[in-house]
Amino acid sequence: MRTVDLIYRKREGEELAPEEITYLVEGYTRGEIPDYQMSAFLMAVCWQGMTEREVSVLTECMLASGERVDLSSVPGIKVDKHSTGGVGDKTSLIAAPLAASAGAVVPMISGRALGHTGGTLDKLEAIPGMRTNLSIAEFGEQLQKLNLAFIGQTAEVAPADGRLYSLRDATATVESIPLIASSIMSKKLAVGLDAIVLDVKVGAGAFMKRQIDARRLAQMMAGIGRRMDKRVQALITDMNQPLGFAVGNALEIMEVSQTLQNAGPVDLTRLSLELAARMIHLGKITETLEEAREVAQSKLLDGSGYRKFKDVIAAQGGNPQVLDRFELLPNATGMREIYSPRAGYVSVIDAALIGQASVMIGAGRDTKDDSIDPAVGVILEVKVGQKVDAGGVLCRLYYTREDGVEEAAEHVEDAFRISAQPPEERELILEVVG
Amino acid sequence: MRTVDLIYRKREGEELAPEEITYLVEGYTRGEIPDYQMSAFLMAVCWQGMTEREVSVLTECMLASGERVDLSSVPGIKVDKHSTGGVGDKTSLIAAPLAASAGAVVPMISGRALGHTGGTLDKLEAIPGMRTNLSIAEFGEQLQKLNLAFIGQTAEVAPADGRLYSLRDATATVESIPLIASSIMSKKLAVGLDAIVLDVKVGAGAFMKRQIDARRLAQMMAGIGRRMDKRVQALITDMNQPLGFAVGNALEIMEVSQTLQNAGPVDLTRLSLELAARMIHLGKITETLEEAREVAQSKLLDGSGYRKFKDVIAAQGGNPQVLDRFELLPNATGMREIYSPRAGYVSVIDAALIGQASVMIGAGRDTKDDSIDPAVGVILEVKVGQKVDAGGVLCRLYYTREDGVEEAAEHVEDAFRISAQPPEERELILEVVG
Repeated sequence: MRTVDLIYRKREGEELAPEEITYLVEGYTRGEIPDYQMSAFLMAVCWQGMTEREVSVLTECMLASGERVDLSSVPGIKVDKHSTGGVGDKTSLIAAPLAASAGAVVPMISGRALGHTGGTLDKLEAIPGMRTNLSIAEFGEQLQKLNLAFIGQTAEVAPADGRLYSLRDATATVESIPLIASSIMSKKLAVGLDAIVLDVKVGAGAFMKRQIDARRLAQMMAGIGRRMDKRVQALITDMNQPLGFAVGNALEIMEVSQTLQNAGPVDLTRLSLELAARMIHLGKITETLEEAREVAQSKLLDGSGYRKFKDVIAAQGGNPQVLDRFELLPNATGMREIYSPRAGYVSVIDAALIGQASVMIGAGRDTKDDSIDPAVGVILEVKVGQKVDAGGVLCRLYYTREDGVEEAAEHVEDAFRISAQPPEERELILEVVG
Repeated sequence: MRTVDLIYRKREGEELAPEEITYLVEGYTRGEIPDYQMSAFLMAVCWQGMTEREVSVLTECMLASGERVDLSSVPGIKVDKHSTGGVGDKTSLIAAPLAASAGAVVPMISGRALGHTGGTLDKLEAIPGMRTNLSIAEFGEQLQKLNLAFIGQTAEVAPADGRLYSLRDATATVESIPLIASSIMSKKLAVGLDAIVLDVKVGAGAFMKRQIDARRLAQMMAGIGRRMDKRVQALITDMNQPLGFAVGNALEIMEVSQTLQNAGPVDLTRLSLELAARMIHLGKITETLEEAREVAQSKLLDGSGYRKFKDVIAAQGGNPQVLDRFELLPNATGMREIYSPRAGYVSVIDAALIGQASVMIGAGRDTKDDSIDPAVGVILEVKVGQKVDAGGVLCRLYYTREDGVEEAAEHVEDAFRISAQPPEERELILEVVG
């Protein structure tokens, strides 16, 4: 088997056999296939795609490249939730405590911010003392005790995916539905999960700009799950404007706290409840989805989710009081308001521009090695569809250093469009796959 | 400017600006852009193609990466001929002496065999003593004296092309019309040429299998020439069956000798005369192409081309007597005949299979570092359209070592198809571009 022949056949649109995909991934992981051949192969995959069989084998190979987290000693059906990445998307921190307080076991492996999208791990680490580098033993114990634990992806889990991801990042081969699908699923399936709820974002602030691509991604991930006997459901949800009002790590923790106390933004609350309900249902806590929705709602209203999140923070070394006393969280020192240039209706809040602006002031990272400022970010004062006066505040920028603030403010200004007519209402949850 | 953004824009089908192409080629040549980014870019080019502007800039950058051969001191219009590569294609060794004996100045930079196609340089080196590594000074002096000199591509000419070609070879990015066009033209234009006649091969034994691709390649090379004020004409010619009867280095030198004495195969003679005529016409030796055809014909008939080739061989250290006394050339020690399984008409002689078979016995190379056996090869006894008896000899394999002979014989057998009906006649010269 020659690598160059496999690249050639992929560029000609052929399906590779399982042993050929295995040869490529194992050879690359062992350092026998050089980066320059793998990057050409990855670009050929961007071009020609992959079949469901190919993408399943790719996922299995990446899984096999590393350690698996054995949670068989933890009783109960394990269900996780994953988002393909958005701006202001803190639903994991709301849905997971709700589902866990209803009885689902939620071993949550989370990622970090990259590009204009945020990462759950960075948000959690805005809480002073919070540890996300639990050992596998600690992770299992906490799951047994609290039904929920948060952990970062370790180097030992799917290392082939880690290497491939760095290469994709440097070679413009990130945007490929099979590559995204296998990357997500290999990380998630490294934990002994029984079910996954996926939130596939679509729109200006998401990797997938078109609903047809989001659907294909959702279908591909569901297919990978099916071939491995996992129950997978995907919601395709709108990511044109940021979710909720807050974008930025500590700012989002504050909004999570408000939302878990049923005082959060409508869109964030609605999506978090639906995700929690799907987790509860796939976790077989209820028989029907309708019942699961009622359970999720009651866990929000009676404060169970809120208390669960506090318990988890305390268990992982964080200070749970931050959820009541926001001054205990890192706070920004500077603030700048962005005003509406005219009266009208907010018709667009471009989530990508808002995300990029927050990266500029330090809330996210351009490259993996950038450090993050947990205090900074953006708080929207309006959402799409709202009426504003000329000179009314559209949003506030919170920052700690002057660098980049000017440019960030320009990006934020560009993100808003104010129109004479109210925009058409857009659905938040567009589709369910699986 | 970030390399990854340029790769991204190419994969999205955008045209890159001249300074962006320059940034990529210069950065790669200086070692600042790693192989893995360049190979992803090359695959994106295979996918999305290049505009005429992009490919012209790419060619100029590759030219600028190395030394140019300054032939301004040599008087006369300099015209070269290039083939995109075929099996049994020894036209350069016939057309160039004919054109040179008619007064055109022919500074011929030639390549080596790779894959199933032969290389002019390897054919010349089958002549004992023949030197192709002339210094630039020697090259110029010989051109002044004889109008013709043969030289290999030196490392100093278009080194960016050399590096890119190795990378393409390892990453299945060879088959790309803009990449092929710029590679050919950058090497050719590094010599101060005024005009080029291109022989773009199409068919089973050529890189281009379809005439539409051959036409696009021809048009792209003509476009590059036009932007650099060079006169370029391309013939698109059939390469389904080998050209002439001989395939293999010394065997082809023998056939060149016969053809320059007007005793060669019809197809080879016809194409060589037409190429010579185009060289004579572009070299402004005659006013019309018709006159140029008459001149080429007369130089064949009166033996001028034959004497010219002898003079050039002698000037480059070779023994010109080999053209009369074939026993002075390297000769194979073994011979195997391939017989027709039945009576009928020869309807197919697959040039790729014949080429591959001769590589197996040592006439060509699989990789750049393989060595060549000048003595070995294949001599066809029939051409497409001829009648054969059952058990009649189709061709002879000449070899010096037993290794690979069996497999080569099978390939050669597979190359022939014998049909009850005579095949439709196929044109040798299919189209003229430019």
